[in-house]
Parts: sequence; C-alpha cells; structure tokens
Amino acid sequence: MTEKINRIVLAFSGGLDTSVILKWLQQTYGCEVVTFTADLGQGEELEPARAKAQLMGVKQEHIFIDDLREEFVKDYVFPMMRSNALYEGLYLLGTSIARPLIAKRQIEIAKQVGADAVSHGATGKGNDQVRFELGYYALSPDIKVIAPWREWDLTSRTKLIEFAEKHQIPIPRDKRGESPFSTDANMLHTSSEGKVLEDPWEETPDYVYSRTVNPEDAPDAPEYITIDFERGDGVAINGVGMSPATLLETLNDYGRKHGIGRLDLVENRFVGMKSRGMYETPGGTIYHLAHRGIEQLTLDRGAAHLKDELAPRYAELIYNGFWFSPEREMLQAAIDHSQEKVTGTVRLKLYKGGVHVVGRKSPYSLYSEKVVTFEDDAGAYDQRDAAGFIKLNALRLRLLGRRDR
Amino acid sequence: MTEKINRIVLAFSGGLDTSVILKWLQQTYGCEVVTFTADLGQGEELEPARAKAQLMGVKQEHIFIDDLREEFVKDYVFPMMRSNALYEGLYLLGTSIARPLIAKRQIEIAKQVGADAVSHGATGKGNDQVRFELGYYALSPDIKVIAPWREWDLTSRTKLIEFAEKHQIPIPRDKRGESPFSTDANMLHTSSEGKVLEDPWEETPDYVYSRTVNPEDAPDAPEYITIDFERGDGVAINGVGMSPATLLETLNDYGRKHGIGRLDLVENRFVGMKSRGMYETPGGTIYHLAHRGIEQLTLDRGAAHLKDELAPRYAELIYNGFWFSPEREMLQAAIDHSQEKVTGTVRLKLYKGGVHVVGRKSPYSLYSEKVVTFEDDAGAYDQRDAAGFIKLNALRLRLLGRRDR
Amino acid sequence: MTEKINRIVLAFSGGLDTSVILKWLQQTYGCEVVTFTADLGQGEELEPARAKAQLMGVKQEHIFIDDLREEFVKDYVFPMMRSNALYEGLYLLGTSIARPLIAKRQIEIAKQVGADAVSHGATGKGNDQVRFELGYYALSPDIKVIAPWREWDLTSRTKLIEFAEKHQIPIPRDKRGESPFSTDANMLHTSSEGKVLEDPWEETPDYVYSRTVNPEDAPDAPEYITIDFERGDGVAINGVGMSPATLLETLNDYGRKHGIGRLDLVENRFVGMKSRGMYETPGGTIYHLAHRGIEQLTLDRGAAHLKDELAPRYAELIYNGFWFSPEREMLQAAIDHSQEKVTGTVRLKLYKGGVHVVGRKSPYSLYSEKVVTFEDDAGAYDQRDAAGFIKLNALRLRLLGRRDR
Amino acid sequence: MTEKINRIVLAFSGGLDTSVILKWLQQTYGCEVVTFTADLGQGEELEPARAKAQLMGVKQEHIFIDDLREEFVKDYVFPMMRSNALYEGLYLLGTSIARPLIAKRQIEIAKQVGADAVSHGATGKGNDQVRFELGYYALSPDIKVIAPWREWDLTSRTKLIEFAEKHQIPIPRDKRGESPFSTDANMLHTSSEGKVLEDPWEETPDYVYSRTVNPEDAPDAPEYITIDFERGDGVAINGVGMSPATLLETLNDYGRKHGIGRLDLVENRFVGMKSRGMYETPGGTIYHLAHRGIEQLTLDRGAAHLKDELAPRYAELIYNGFWFSPEREMLQAAIDHSQEKVTGTVRLKLYKGGVHVVGRKSPYSLYSEKVVTFEDDAGAYDQRDAAGFIKLNALRLRLLGRRDR
Repeated sequence: MTEKINRIVLAFSGGLDTSVILKWLQQTYGCEVVTFTADLGQGEELEPARAKAQLMGVKQEHIFIDDLREEFVKDYVFPMMRSNALYEGLYLLGTSIARPLIAKRQIEIAKQVGADAVSHGATGKGNDQVRFELGYYALSPDIKVIAPWREWDLTSRTKLIEFAEKHQIPIPRDKRGESPFSTDANMLHTSSEGKVLEDPWEETPDYVYSRTVNPEDAPDAPEYITIDFERGDGVAINGVGMSPATLLETLNDYGRKHGIGRLDLVENRFVGMKSRGMYETPGGTIYHLAHRGIEQLTLDRGAAHLKDELAPRYAELIYNGFWFSPEREMLQAAIDHSQEKVTGTVRLKLYKGGVHVVGRKSPYSLYSEKVVTFEDDAGAYDQRDAAGFIKLNALRLRLLGRRDR
Repeated sequence: MTEKINRIVLAFSGGLDTSVILKWLQQTYGCEVVTFTADLGQGEELEPARAKAQLMGVKQEHIFIDDLREEFVKDYVFPMMRSNALYEGLYLLGTSIARPLIAKRQIEIAKQVGADAVSHGATGKGNDQVRFELGYYALSPDIKVIAPWREWDLTSRTKLIEFAEKHQIPIPRDKRGESPFSTDANMLHTSSEGKVLEDPWEETPDYVYSRTVNPEDAPDAPEYITIDFERGDGVAINGVGMSPATLLETLNDYGRKHGIGRLDLVENRFVGMKSRGMYETPGGTIYHLAHRGIEQLTLDRGAAHLKDELAPRYAELIYNGFWFSPEREMLQAAIDHSQEKVTGTVRLKLYKGGVHVVGRKSPYSLYSEKVVTFEDDAGAYDQRDAAGFIKLNALRLRLLGRRDR
Repeated sequence: MTEKINRIVLAFSGGLDTSVILKWLQQTYGCEVVTFTADLGQGEELEPARAKAQLMGVKQEHIFIDDLREEFVKDYVFPMMRSNALYEGLYLLGTSIARPLIAKRQIEIAKQVGADAVSHGATGKGNDQVRFELGYYALSPDIKVIAPWREWDLTSRTKLIEFAEKHQIPIPRDKRGESPFSTDANMLHTSSEGKVLEDPWEETPDYVYSRTVNPEDAPDAPEYITIDFERGDGVAINGVGMSPATLLETLNDYGRKHGIGRLDLVENRFVGMKSRGMYETPGGTIYHLAHRGIEQLTLDRGAAHLKDELAPRYAELIYNGFWFSPEREMLQAAIDHSQEKVTGTVRLKLYKGGVHVVGRKSPYSLYSEKVVTFEDDAGAYDQRDAAGFIKLNALRLRLLGRRDR
Repeated sequence: MTEKINRIVLAFSGGLDTSVILKWLQQTYGCEVVTFTADLGQGEELEPARAKAQLMGVKQEHIFIDDLREEFVKDYVFPMMRSNALYEGLYLLGTSIARPLIAKRQIEIAKQVGADAVSHGATGKGNDQVRFELGYYALSPDIKVIAPWREWDLTSRTKLIEFAEKHQIPIPRDKRGESPFSTDANMLHTSSEGKVLEDPWEETPDYVYSRTVNPEDAPDAPEYITIDFERGDGVAINGVGMSPATLLETLNDYGRKHGIGRLDLVENRFVGMKSRGMYETPGGTIYHLAHRGIEQLTLDRGAAHLKDELAPRYAELIYNGFWFSPEREMLQAAIDHSQEKVTGTVRLKLYKGGVHVVGRKSPYSLYSEKVVTFEDDAGAYDQRDAAGFIKLNALRLRLLGRRDR
C-alpha cells in the first residue's frame, strides 16, 4: 500500500459501499479517483451517482457515466446466447457476462485519463473480483489493481457505517440496518444472495424477487409471442424489428409479467466454495429457449452436437472470468461460424413461469417433411440403406461380442 | 430372404403392426415365431397380446410376457439419470433408454428357445431400428436380424390392412382409419410424432397429449414434494421409501396432475434427418431436476463440471443406440464413481407445468455456510488468498497482453 | 444399375484397376466417361494416364489432368497441421487429407462437363469410399455415385485380369502376379497395407518402404535444419522462403535421407474393422513436430490446451471423411483463430529416424526468461502469490476431505 | 509465522536445500522436525540423509526413509500409463506423478507422529509446490503447510550458503559454486531446467543428460524386445515376469543404452508462465509406445477414441497436481474400465533414440484378418453394406448441401 499511485479509476455505483471505497481510496492513496458508472440496464438512476461523486470531490471531467446497454446486449449477451451456455446446467450467467464490459470500459478510461490503477467494490470471497481483475490484467497487463475489500480493515458493516458517518458520506436509510440479502442487477438479470438465502434448505421468500411476478400471480391465460432471428441473433418480436437492447428489454417485460426465469441455485464458485444464489432472468430465459428452437430447425446435427459439447466449457470460462482469453475467443469463433443460417422465426407460449417453444419456421430449414414423412416419400429416403448403416455401425460391437460375451 | 431361418423371436406388442409382422414372418420364413411382450409400464393390458399370439398359432411355451418395470427403472432409467443427460439440450431420452432392455431380453429368450433370429417392428427411417439392432448384435454377434419394414412390400397402410384382412388378423376399429400420429410409451415417457405433427410451425394440438393435463387445467395451487436420494438414486417420496418403479410411477402421477414434462422438439435422428417429436416425461422431468438439486449440494465442482462436459456425449450414445458399448460403459463408470455421496433430500414445488427446486439438504453437504457467509467467517477463508489466486490466473493473460495489446 | 446415367467423371489413376473401371463403366452404363487424374505429388508420371484414357476412347476434352500440389498443401495439409492432429495418437492422416480435394475437383469437373455421376476405385471395405462419397454428396447433394467395387462381379484378381485381357486393357507386367501389398501415395505420405502386412505380429519387411531409407542406412551424422513459420504455416527452410508444396517436398527429401516418419499401425477404420497399415510420412513428421515446437513458444496455455482437447475429434473427422462438414469447419475456425502469432523459427536435429526440436525463437514469444528465471527476477513474479493460488485451488478439496477422509 | 506449530514433517532429500530448510524450520518454529526421505528410484544413496538428519538433531524415531519404488510404479506410474497421457502432446509427466505419492506418505507420517504441519523444498515459481500442497490439503484438510521458499529471506544462493555455513550444515563441494541447472529424478524420469537451459533457442548441452547415452553413441545395431501386458499393465519383458518396479527399471536400462526418451520442451506451468525443461524418460517412453501398441489390437474403437479425447484433460489434471481429486478418479474409473482385455505381447525395435512397435499379438485381439483381408472373405463382410452406411452418414450433408451450395 506504500506503493505510489497517481490516479485510480473506480467502478462506482453510487451506493454506500463504493462511496466508502471512493473516500477510502482518496485517503489511503492520497491521489485522484476517477469514477466510472455504467448503465447496463440495472434500472437505477445514474445521476445521483454523479452528484455523489462531485460531493466527494471528484472533478467534473473525472466523472464518467456511460450508457452501455446496446453494447452490453450486442457484444456480450448475444454472443454468449449463441452458445446456449448454461453454467452447471441451469444458470444463464447474468452477472458473469457484465463484468468484462465494465472492466474493458474502465481500462479505456484509465488510458484516457492517464490513470495507473483501477479499483472495484467486489469482495474477496466472490467471483466478481476475479472477473474484474482478469479483465483488467488481460487488457492492461501492467495496471495496478486495488481491491479494497481484500485490503482494508472495514471488515464489518458496523465499521463501514462508522467510516461513512465520520466522512459525511450519505447513508441511505435502508442501508443503516442490515440488508437481508445482497443483489446485483443488469439488463439480463438480477441476482440475490447471502444472509436470508444462506440456508439452501429454506425456500426463498417471495420478497427477494424484484424482476418477476410470482408465477401464481401471473395471468391465467397464456400469451403467445414470436421472435425473429438473423444469423443467430434476435432481431424482432412479433414481427417488429428492434435493437438488441430494446429486444431484451421487451422480453424482460414479457418475462416479468408471466413470472418467467426464476432460479434457485446452489453453485460452485471459481474461488472454491459453494454458494446459493437466486436469479431472475426473465427475458434471457425466453431468449435462450427461443434460440435453441430456431437452431433445431436450421443447424446441422454435427454443428449442434459439437456446440453442445463445447457449451459447458464455454460457460465455465465466462463464469470464471476468462472472457478476454484466447480459448474463449477460439470457442466463440467456432460457435459464430455455425450461426450463419440460424435465421427464422420461433413461436413461444408464455404461461405461469413457463416458456414453451410451440413452432418454428425458417427459409433455411434443414427439416424436410418429404424425407421424414411416415407417408410415401417418393424415394427421398431408401429404407434399405438403414440395413447397411446399422451393419457397419454394429461391426465393431459384433467383433467385441464374439470376443467377450 | 432365401436364407434358412429356424426360429425367430419377435418383439410383439399385440398391436396391428406386429400382428401383421408375426403372420408375415411365419409365411415368409416358414418357421416358428416366438413372441416377446414386455411390460415397461406403457399402461396397456398385456394379456390380449397373449390371446392374439395364440390365435395366430404361437405355441403356449413360446409366448413370453415379462414385467420388466423394476429392471427398466433400476438398471436403465436411474443410471442414465445419474448423468443428467439431455439429448440436444432438452430431451430426456425416454424411448432410447427402453430399447436396449427389450433387445437384451429378446436375446436371452432367443438363447433359451434356441432361436437363430430376432425381429422387431421399427421402421427403416427411425432411430429405434438402430437401437434394437445394435443391442442384438452387441449381445449376440451372429444372430440374424429381420426388420420387416425394410424388407417387405407392405409399403402403405392400405396394403397392411389388406394383408391383415386376408389373414384374419383382428383389426382394432380405430386402426382402420389413419391414425393422426404415431406413439411410443413406457413408464418414463410417451412420444408422439408423424402426420399432424409433421409441420414444425404448427402447435401440437392438445389431443395429442395423453400423459399430462394441460398446464392451464392443472391445479391453481402449487404442491410441494420431497425426494430422498441415496448414492445418486431416488429412494423415497415425501419420506416414504419406494422401489425404483414405484417411485417413478408416483412422480408420474404428480407430473400428470400438474401438467409437467411436455416437450415439443425438432431433433436430429441418427439416420441423418430432422424429425419433430412431442414428448411427455412427467415423472422423469421432476426427477431430473431433483437429481441436479441434490448434486448441487453434494458433488464437488471438479466432478460436476466433468459430468457436465461428458453428458452430451453420453446422451448421444444412448440416443444413437450404443448402450451396450465400451464407451458408454466407460462413461457410466466415471459417472457412477461420482455418485457415492449424492445422498440427501430435495424439496420441489410443482405448479402449472413447472418444477422448481426450492430446497435441498444432505448429511454429505459440501456447502459451508461458515465459509460462504457475508458475515464474519472466523478465519474460515482468508480473502487475501484471492489476490494471489487472481494474480497467477492472470499471469498468462498479462504476458499475452504485453505481447498483443 | 438400370438407372439412366449420361456422363460419369471417374477419378482415374491410369493403373490397372481404374482402367478396368473405365471400361466397365462405359459398358455397363453405356455412357461417356470423363477421366480426372490429379497430381498430388504421388511421384508418378501422369501423361501415361492421358494416353491410356485416349486409347479407351475418352475424348480429348474429357481427359482432365491437374496439378493440385500447391492447393493440396496450402489448403488441406497446412490447415490440418495447424491442429497437430494425430489419428489414434500416432497417424498423420496422409491418405485421409487427400480425398476431399480429389472429390472437390471431381465435382467441379462434373459441373463443368455436365456429368450426372462420379465414380472412384476405392473398395467397399476401406475408408476411402466414405471419404470420396461424403465429399461428393456434401458438394453436390444430388450427384449419382458409382462405386464399382461394391457393384460388379469382378470379385477376384483373376476375374479382373480376364476382363482386362478381354478388353485389350494393357496390364503392367508387375500387375499380372499378385502384388504383395497395396499402396497409396501423395506428397504427404505413402501408405501400404494388405497381404504380407496382414499379420500384425510380423514385422514389416524392408522392401515395403519406398519413401524413406532404413534408419540403419541413414547418415551417421545428425543434420540440423530450421523451419520458419508465419501465422501457423511453414514458409522457409534454412532461411530460404518456399511455397507450401516446395517446402513439404524439401522436408520429404530430408526425411527420406534420415529415415524419418515410418509408422507401423493397427488402426480402427470408420467402417468398423481394425486394419494394419504401414505409413511413411517423412516431411510431414518433421513438420508436425516443428509446428508443436513453435507453438510451445508462441501459443498461450489456454489456447494450447483447448487445441489439444479438440485435436482427437478433429483428427477423427478427417479420418472418417467429414472434411466438408460444419463441425470440421467450426473446429478449423477455432484452430485458425489461435495461429495469428504462431510465427518464428524452429531448429531441428534429424538423425537415424528421429526428429528432435532443439531450439525455437520468435518475435512473439510468450516465454519470459525474466519471469521464469531461478535467479533474482526483480519482482517480475511474487512467489507469495502462489500461496493464495494454492489455497483457493485447494479449497474445494479441503471441504471434500473434511467430509470424506 | 507467529502461529504455534508443534511438529513438522519435512520432505527431506538430504541435499543442501532441504538441509537448510530443516535447520530453518527448527529455528523459526522452535519445534521438532520429522524427516521423510523417499526412495522413488532416483538413484541416490539414502543413508547419508539419515546421518545428516541425525547430525541436525532429528530423533532416531523421527527419521523416516521408505522404499516406495514398487508402490510408485504400481499405483501411480502404471495407472497413468493406462491413459496414454502426454502433457502438451509430448511430456510423460515424470515429476508430476511422483509428487502425490510423497504427499500421501508425508501425511501418513504426520498422522503417525502427531505432527500438525508439513513442509517441502519446492520453490514458489514451480508446479511442485502446487502438487505437494494440493495433495496435503486433499488428504488432511486442516494440516498446516510451510513452504520456506515462499516465506524466508534466503532469496539468493549466497544467502543460503551463508546460512548453511553459519549453522555447520555440510555443503557438498559441487554445490559451492552455482550449479549450471536444476534437476529432479525418480524411477520414471530425470528433469533438468534453469540457468544454462533458460534460452529456448540454445540446444541443450550434452552434459545435461544423465540417464541416457547420446543417440549418436548408442549401439549401431537395433535391439528387439517384447513386453507382455495383462489388463493394461506391463508384466514381463522378453517373456520374463517382473514386478512393476523391476520392469520399469529394466526398460530404463534398455532406454539408457539406446539413447531413448530425451525431450526438450517449452511447457506451460500451472502457475502461469512458460518454462523450458529437458526430460529423460528412457523406460517410460518405451512403455508408453508399447501400451499404445497392445491397445491397438485389443481395444475397441469407441473406447480408444474416448480415451484419446479424455487424455489431454487427464494429463492436465496430473500436471496441475489434482491426482487426489474426484475428477481424476472419475477419469481413472473410465480408463481402467477399458483395460480389462488389454492383454498380450508387443514387440519393439530400439535403435539410436527411436522406439518402434513392430509387432503385437493377443489372445483378445479384435483384429480380424478374416474380415479385413483384401482376399475373398467368405462373406465375413458384405461390401454392399457400405453403400447404406455412406448414404445415411451423408444424408445430413446432402440436406445441408441442398440448402447452402
């Protein structure tokens, strides 16, 4: 900590924790702190963050507030969704996929303002510190990284509040007491974890959910929508073309209304422990299934199965923070190569927490009624070919059977 | 066909198709046909099959009707479920997993009665012919296999009906006309495909479903159940111990009632074409998610991620008919090795087509509240370790960044 | 065979077998046959093939003789070598990689001359029929494929000779008797199999080898060479820039001289049986190891390990004939993405059948003496970071150990 | 370091470094140090280690010297060799595979003598610290681990020598000066790295090699040997049955004589840097190829290809120190399942640094001359089956071609 730092770019939400960090950095390193606040669709006002930064002495030109919503969906969420990735079979990686973009923008700002360090508010037990810092180091190998939660002695909430009070940092009323759990939000999802959620046998109380209605309170009638895809990415809902962020936001509205995308998960963190999280991914859940739906029709079996085999690894890389790694980029190159004809329309039924693909069509469909039909296929497929196909597939098993059985 | 056959064991359902096959085999090969009818929980009376076989001249001692329900669930469904396998990300392999057991029993009977051939009623376009025949050949490499659908000239339903009438084969009233789709059923699932389902843009009509109520007609109140697992397999529901088949049957009842486990899928067949199927897997869908739930708590990350990477391959092997192959057995050995402590209880909420894991507990839990807690952890985890962890994980990315960025 | 064919493009080597096929096609299908003879560096004169085709009545403008050597190395051998693929851990895929190019050119010619069928001389037991035909079908889905060895009744060499004599087809003196084994050659390798090689316990007699001296007869002094790579492909030997084909040919000369690249293999064919082959891949063996050598220095660990995990699958795809498949192209996209900085020089020692990488250097080296040194590293690496790295990697194992040990 | 330690078990070679560590531990922690010296076939006298420990005040009953050679080969080397694992395509993991056994025995001794800590002499830059410590933590989750090289201030050789002199620790004459490189040895291999080897462009000087003659000095005549395998493990050489360690030692003699098993490698360490190592694995190199040879004949294709796909991951796990992990054990279970019939004899030719499998035979051979033969096979294989096999394998490519080409 005696190391000389000139200027630090802090990922700053404007909340209590990063406000305390802002002050602590100013004091501890005696240097300028530059704040960066990203709009990733978390649904909060960002201007209060500006006011707070100003109040704490950050120069006007050192307060960065960026709307990254379109970039987030277009360059991070959509590429990931092309892979059908699910971490540990279930989780749509909502937090994980936002971190690399924040890290990237922080490094860009650091270069712009001549900062030699970056800082974030993630704790020392979680995955986010890893995701932020792997991003920083990959993009700026010699940057200094300051992770206050691993360094300071504000090891309890009481101490944090004391520090805030001592330094005239405004404390939101609801932060005075213990928050019953911790959350993270962006356009793709909201996650909640900690405290009341720490016993994995206890059902998550309904008040934890903020992005979706309880399925029991969702409409009693199903609703049908269509999503159009082009080259693997969503481009329209119900025939209306939309930008990536607008499309995801629109799906979020549908998902919220129908109680879609709640997940209660015990997962394995990269840092080695199990944790329990509650995720709400309303639009992402719909989108994920719709993407599978259009791939069913337009993707060749060889491509589809290779994708399925690569997806767990790809998901793990994103979860662990390796977005900016050669191996993630290699997998992305393979996945993207497969998406050229993943174009068409998927029809979905939304009902009481459920999403059901009920129809798909495409100008590039590989499905051939003529070949598959139970009716006379006019020679499109010769059933006798199957005999040879089976015989040669069986040959090694027969040689084995003769030896072993 | 001029090949001399002495005795054939036919997989015989008692329905029109296999009745025609029975007669056709008797005529074409001029030899004794032995019938084998398996109870796999498909929910049909089997005694009519006996009567029908007798009527068509099969000797009393050559009519085999076996209740394989417990064996099916214990030795086929449960081992598969340990893997969390989903074919093409979604399908629980209900038809695929039944075929190897039928093939195995057919071969056992062939050995018992001294038959030199086996036969089945699967068509030349589907996967089932492959699954049956790879099983036959693996278990009895020199058996002769007769697949009438690939050989005869009864290439239309009209010809089939004519053949049946000519040979006094009873034709169920509802088989006279064209059935609007084709089905297969066992205790794990019912599949429907063909005809009215052949256009993948058209929503499946509700009358196709036979094993589940429409989610819209399911109870308006959620229902909670628990499943107990021991070493990776379900052993009790709501605390009541049950045999494998009883457990699955009980879950089927829950699933039916709550409209759980319907899937509309366009899939890639092993024989090279895409087809569209409608699956109902009520109990299996609940079981699958419950198994993931108990693994979340009791399975180490390394084991869990390796399983997730192997699962698509394992699913493909079962789908393609390679149950009796060394590579499926190798994967099974790896999977089974991981299940020793997969023991505990999962609590699930069933509601309107949805299954939600809401709690899990285990005497072998690897989840440690003490380690993960947001509160003071009394030294269980040293947050400063994370700094070194990140630094060394980043090292190669930094070296790369220095070169490339 | 009663199907009406108008014009057939035959892959024609000019040897006895394809000459008989040429005549047989003309007779059987009563149509024009177009011959295509490729120079893939197999080291045979091609003009005799022209004369032979003319003699058998093929029109001048229907005799195609193409030098494909540069295309072969640049677009097939080099992309494959970027993957480090070895089939079954040892085999450099010399035959497999040539087939797609032949198929592709045959289809091009078929389109050019308006042919509706293609034909080849591969037998019904081998892999090559599959490789040819998958290529044909992928590139021209409705082409007719004629595989005489699977169709005709010339099932013994005696009958073949009789047919040749009857139709005045010239029979090379050495083909009258039984050849002691069968060979295939191109610039990458020569394979030999069959007959005297069929007992896998018997050592391959030295006369089988045609492309390499016996290591025992190789020079008694080692020879050193360098290969320069750019973006994953070889571009120079001993500092002298060369085209792809010239580079491979030059390495073949070195390999031949030093007895490099002999392989005696029992392998698993795609058609289900084991076969024993003897391969000589002199230049390819040197190139393969050199490519690994330059990757060691320039490829990131994450990329390298992912490549190693994908390579067996990639090799299998090429061996099985799926060059023109989406999944091979996806893997290629991933592999190629990794090669951008695989640039530099490898130094190799060649001696008595052995190839040894003894040095490598690169402007894009990721190897850092400063970091790795046993000496004082001036802070390039903080050894204390390792403690945290190990602690967090161990965390899950400790939780597991507390439960299980 | 202020933590109270009662008793430490040190992995003690008797060399200068671990002698200094022994003294340093006694001084720093003021507690008893127990020494453990393992005979893993490194080819050094172990009694001097006893004398040295005694001299430094270690109690007679706290000096453990164990001959682990048979256990090492039987339970570590052979299981690994069953997998055909090669780290980064080339390295036989000679150092990696020894570390878990040392760790395991250290923990056993710690339990026996009531020690609460273990210590080792590996540095903070290498892989061995990770391998030791992951082993310790997996087997004894609450053990304290002391890694002096990461903790003390003896950061240069000069300081180390001064410390040794000050404490009357005997310094071997050849350790006074700088050793030109660092080595590690056990029965499987000797590794050398550092200093004169740090420039990866410089050829390794011949004096670095200690386990093999220079191939140029190897006998001018090849030598043939046979190895017999049973269930995947070597059991006899030239027909003479041997224990695992004797067998490996015998192969080492052959390898030494013929200059076999030298490898110059730039590899990726788990801690994130590239390093350059020189490995000699004489017997292991022969054994590895022989094992592949017997598998070629006895292992089914499905099993073989699955093994090939799993091997890079398995190798990585061992290299990274995860021997005692659930995922390594799962892979081992899969691999071991495949080895039941890997029984038979391999014949090898050894010559001037090269190992060549020239023959293999087995009572469980899956190779069928009858099926594969170029001659008349009497119906063992119907070539017409290949047509259907190809047609159905091509179907998806044709559907794709119709859409895309």
